[in-house]
Amino acid sequence: MIGIGVIGYGYWGPNLVRNFAEAKDARVVAVCDRRPQRLALAQSRYPAIRTYTDEKELLAAPDIDAVAIATPVHTHFDVAMAALQAGKHVLVEKPMAVSAEQAQRMIDEAEKRKLQLMVDHTFIYTPAVRKIKQIITDGELGDIYYYDSTRVNLGLFQHDVNVVWDLAVHDLSILDFLLADKPVAVSATGMSHVPGEPENVAYITLFFATNVVAHINVNWLSPVKVRQTMIGGSWRMLVYDDIEPSEKVRIYDRGINLKPSQEDVYRLLVSYRSGDMRAPHLETTEALRMEADEFVRCVRDNHKPFNDGHAGLRVVRILEAAAESMKLRGAAVQIAGV
Amino acid sequence: MIGIGVIGYGYWGPNLVRNFAEAKDARVVAVCDRRPQRLALAQSRYPAIRTYTDEKELLAAPDIDAVAIATPVHTHFDVAMAALQAGKHVLVEKPMAVSAEQAQRMIDEAEKRKLQLMVDHTFIYTPAVRKIKQIITDGELGDIYYYDSTRVNLGLFQHDVNVVWDLAVHDLSILDFLLADKPVAVSATGMSHVPGEPENVAYITLFFATNVVAHINVNWLSPVKVRQTMIGGSWRMLVYDDIEPSEKVRIYDRGINLKPSQEDVYRLLVSYRSGDMRAPHLETTEALRMEADEFVRCVRDNHKPFNDGHAGLRVVRILEAAAESMKLRGAAVQIAGV
Amino acid sequence: MIGIGVIGYGYWGPNLVRNFAEAKDARVVAVCDRRPQRLALAQSRYPAIRTYTDEKELLAAPDIDAVAIATPVHTHFDVAMAALQAGKHVLVEKPMAVSAEQAQRMIDEAEKRKLQLMVDHTFIYTPAVRKIKQIITDGELGDIYYYDSTRVNLGLFQHDVNVVWDLAVHDLSILDFLLADKPVAVSATGMSHVPGEPENVAYITLFFATNVVAHINVNWLSPVKVRQTMIGGSWRMLVYDDIEPSEKVRIYDRGINLKPSQEDVYRLLVSYRSGDMRAPHLETTEALRMEADEFVRCVRDNHKPFNDGHAGLRVVRILEAAAESMKLRGAAVQIAGV
Amino acid sequence: MIGIGVIGYGYWGPNLVRNFAEAKDARVVAVCDRRPQRLALAQSRYPAIRTYTDEKELLAAPDIDAVAIATPVHTHFDVAMAALQAGKHVLVEKPMAVSAEQAQRMIDEAEKRKLQLMVDHTFIYTPAVRKIKQIITDGELGDIYYYDSTRVNLGLFQHDVNVVWDLAVHDLSILDFLLADKPVAVSATGMSHVPGEPENVAYITLFFATNVVAHINVNWLSPVKVRQTMIGGSWRMLVYDDIEPSEKVRIYDRGINLKPSQEDVYRLLVSYRSGDMRAPHLETTEALRMEADEFVRCVRDNHKPFNDGHAGLRVVRILEAAAESMKLRGAAVQIAGV
Repeated sequence: MIGIGVIGYGYWGPNLVRNFAEAKDARVVAVCDRRPQRLALAQSRYPAIRTYTDEKELLAAPDIDAVAIATPVHTHFDVAMAALQAGKHVLVEKPMAVSAEQAQRMIDEAEKRKLQLMVDHTFIYTPAVRKIKQIITDGELGDIYYYDSTRVNLGLFQHDVNVVWDLAVHDLSILDFLLADKPVAVSATGMSHVPGEPENVAYITLFFATNVVAHINVNWLSPVKVRQTMIGGSWRMLVYDDIEPSEKVRIYDRGINLKPSQEDVYRLLVSYRSGDMRAPHLETTEALRMEADEFVRCVRDNHKPFNDGHAGLRVVRILEAAAESMKLRGAAVQIAGV
Repeated sequence: MIGIGVIGYGYWGPNLVRNFAEAKDARVVAVCDRRPQRLALAQSRYPAIRTYTDEKELLAAPDIDAVAIATPVHTHFDVAMAALQAGKHVLVEKPMAVSAEQAQRMIDEAEKRKLQLMVDHTFIYTPAVRKIKQIITDGELGDIYYYDSTRVNLGLFQHDVNVVWDLAVHDLSILDFLLADKPVAVSATGMSHVPGEPENVAYITLFFATNVVAHINVNWLSPVKVRQTMIGGSWRMLVYDDIEPSEKVRIYDRGINLKPSQEDVYRLLVSYRSGDMRAPHLETTEALRMEADEFVRCVRDNHKPFNDGHAGLRVVRILEAAAESMKLRGAAVQIAGV
Repeated sequence: MIGIGVIGYGYWGPNLVRNFAEAKDARVVAVCDRRPQRLALAQSRYPAIRTYTDEKELLAAPDIDAVAIATPVHTHFDVAMAALQAGKHVLVEKPMAVSAEQAQRMIDEAEKRKLQLMVDHTFIYTPAVRKIKQIITDGELGDIYYYDSTRVNLGLFQHDVNVVWDLAVHDLSILDFLLADKPVAVSATGMSHVPGEPENVAYITLFFATNVVAHINVNWLSPVKVRQTMIGGSWRMLVYDDIEPSEKVRIYDRGINLKPSQEDVYRLLVSYRSGDMRAPHLETTEALRMEADEFVRCVRDNHKPFNDGHAGLRVVRILEAAAESMKLRGAAVQIAGV
Repeated sequence: MIGIGVIGYGYWGPNLVRNFAEAKDARVVAVCDRRPQRLALAQSRYPAIRTYTDEKELLAAPDIDAVAIATPVHTHFDVAMAALQAGKHVLVEKPMAVSAEQAQRMIDEAEKRKLQLMVDHTFIYTPAVRKIKQIITDGELGDIYYYDSTRVNLGLFQHDVNVVWDLAVHDLSILDFLLADKPVAVSATGMSHVPGEPENVAYITLFFATNVVAHINVNWLSPVKVRQTMIGGSWRMLVYDDIEPSEKVRIYDRGINLKPSQEDVYRLLVSYRSGDMRAPHLETTEALRMEADEFVRCVRDNHKPFNDGHAGLRVVRILEAAAESMKLRGAAVQIAGV
């Protein structure tokens, strides 16, 4: 039985507690938050847990094997490092840190101590994204041409991170999971409409060594909520609409065929192909529940998850490069480490 | 009665003929196309018109006062210059030329000869775009924050122009019409997935002197057709979906309120506001019919249309800058003339 | 070459002329309408045709082999009988007559003279309905359980027939085509909201000898246009949405499984099954074009079409029974001839 | 502080407990269910409550002022009567009883003892239905012409009641709330596709003394979930789509105008009118929370709710008449008590 401590009981913490409470081979031992009223809420829901206002005390508890960290981004590094140094396995919210340098130190610390360091890239545990992964792996789409995502809604404006660190991070973690190919450079543009606040709209293009291209459109100031991703391939194309109650993933048997022109051998003739559309049945498992189980399994069996510290670091490196490109008004910036 | 000659009877020419045939105070005198079978088709539909395979002969006809040019983009300059030099008013397809330099010379020629030079920015004559213009002018949206458009579909791949010159040109003409503010720089990225062919996906960010930002996503390789534009303002926000059979324009009484924080006067508190949505009733007039009427009126009354050569030039300048930025992988390029 | 005369050039007549003009092995020889301005319109579009204001004169022309009748419903019988008696094959709009008795006499006349009598059940020539027919025939849906159609929009109110004769007739012709099983009784209810005018909303239930049930909801006073049909089967279910630009037909691999309860052998346990959704690719052929070709083929080769006079009679018999049931406020009325 | 006991902790009971737990001036004292594992679940969630397996013991508790009954329909009468006889106020699930005769006896018992008897017509507490009520009351729609509802989905098949008692009851309670006018007769048809089980599809037409008509289409065997209601009026029309995440209610400024024909004074000319569409902002309050508050208020202040026993009885009377009509294959059956 893995004893879990949850640090941070704000927006996301309750979801972590609820899912670890139901995970196999684990139990939630304690919750920590600096706000007593949040702890009271946790206590009323889970009378058996202990509560702490200081994470140091929680980290000192011998019946806690692993912690899940859902505190503000700028605190991830300190809290996670303290946890690792206290010998606890760590699941940390995304983005895992505010800089690649911090992320690297967290990885080093975890590896030195042979502890699990997992980053909560929740979306890669959704039935939709896992189905898409399988579709791509099975070659149903052919070669991937593009990934184009729109992730916009009204709110919630944040003060310490911009819309890229808040919303685009989801797409970056999905991309990291779906494509073996990793982006090498990024061009990003954005704008703030609230004086003194971070960018609330941003547009990101990711370049790869191949002719794959990825684009992410994020916006905190949209009249409607959109969560739509198109993935185009040489053979088929796919639309993933996370707002749809069912049929979130639709595969279109559409595309182009290329063949050399008879008149001009240097020219390719493009013809269009249009066939059936198919929406595969998706499981309805909650993503965070699957991820909690995977974390427990990794801790128990000393197994490396896909979304380990290295995955988290890859995402943070892109975020850093995007921030730099945005300052340069779109000039492409190389992504470190590739 | 204004005598109209239509040069080019391929994809768009028949629409021009049909609409000028029904326009008040005008009649279609002649059609020109190099392909005899296209002329035979025109003749069977309009037995009374004359046909030409050489535009020079058409331009020599004294009963033709004005020509509408629907030939390939790279021929616009030569055909339009010949028409102006023959003393004919000109309506030319968009983009009006392959370079700003050509566009400027067309403007100069028309002004020297006191002839109308109109560029076929059809979308600005649609009931939807005209309604949006009125909504913005009436201040319903407040200050404009962003214009974000997705214009994607499967096909038609073109060989001589990329997807920006083919599809984004629509958004550039709409933007030029809607906003008094003009973009000063552009960051564009794109990719070709067919060896040797122009870019088939592209992403464009337009910067303004203010904090307005515009973004355009165009793609010839999309599994579904999307024609959706969001316009965010300080007071309300709007979605324009041109695929919708009715309710193409939806105005959302949603947004944010800003007020100084009591604790920190340098910080603004953001609160959200959500009210009714309204879809104004739109006329069903065909845009090209309205534009044909406007062209005839401008020729008859010596009136300047909104979409004159200068509007066409503004669009071509952005296209040129976008092309350059795309080569630079997104680095911002200043737009000439602003 | 079959010579075609079109009688009635109002709303539908122009579509008949256009499609027969392009049909193989046929040519439109003449058009008849009592309104000279309608004939002038036809003449301007088709300079080579002859025009008549009196159908008797058209029917006397020896170069006309067959006529298409698109006059008001109450005139179908007289015009069609005159045509048959003049030795012309007949394509008549739906519903073919105002009573089953008239329809039977039309059939008898045509059979006596060995002439084709076809009823314009256009929908059965649409790619969507033909695909559905194939799906059902291939057994993809299993046993059919129900057909449930909603066909509502704003307008056009008619004075001589109610909404059942105007809109439900489409569903009755589709049902007649799709199901080998024929309805035996009908329960219909409806209401008029304009004093002195026929019913503008109606609801129809069709009973079969088996446990199939069909339901049709028609309304001239709906705020939105709906053309949606659900067909439930023992194995799969289907949604046919004719408003969708593509993916008009969606097949859901969903349903119930039944197995005897272990505790109570007289009771069936119901479990649910949910699998993929598939939207088959559909051709984009115009239905009326296919139907015109079929009519020409039947005339030329002396072949019986599916939608012959007997199909038209089956539909009129249901319309008659529905009218009687509506007067009885829903009491089931037997359908004649089954 | 009103002490609440909840009887039945199956599908709906937990929602009752959760909402009463948060209601003002009330507290959940006890939960009763015959299944110990359900009680264990309730206890784990609410450690402070008492649990019972026998409702008689719960009803004997002096600290319980009122009970909410969420047991199977056929038990409502016995449980509610026992509760009333024990002096408890009663909130009972819909339909309130299996017969009008039972419902009437429940009303009589409550009135004799001056106790509240409320029927859980949850939908009339939704922000959408309350907004529609206000729209109708304000005269925005003009005279009501029709109410047409489709409420279909896959599952859950029930063994003791048919789809009318399960799903149409929602529409009957909404209609009862929205329209002052009450239906006088009903025509219903339906079909069972599972041998030995109740009808799983049904179609109901309700007749009124005026020219209002209502229609309800319910189905347990639909491939897609639909919750759509259209309400047509003489002035405007409305679509209520409960599946929509926002904009559940859309008001269309569309309809017909009638004026006497100049040629024929006995005939009305129908013209169409089409204006804006508006989707009013809706609160996001949970309906059951509002209803729980209302029940507590009624108990506390001895106030009659809208959805009292009489409302419940009106609904049951329609259900009874519909059941009879269905046996008669659609023949209209008078509704008792009007």
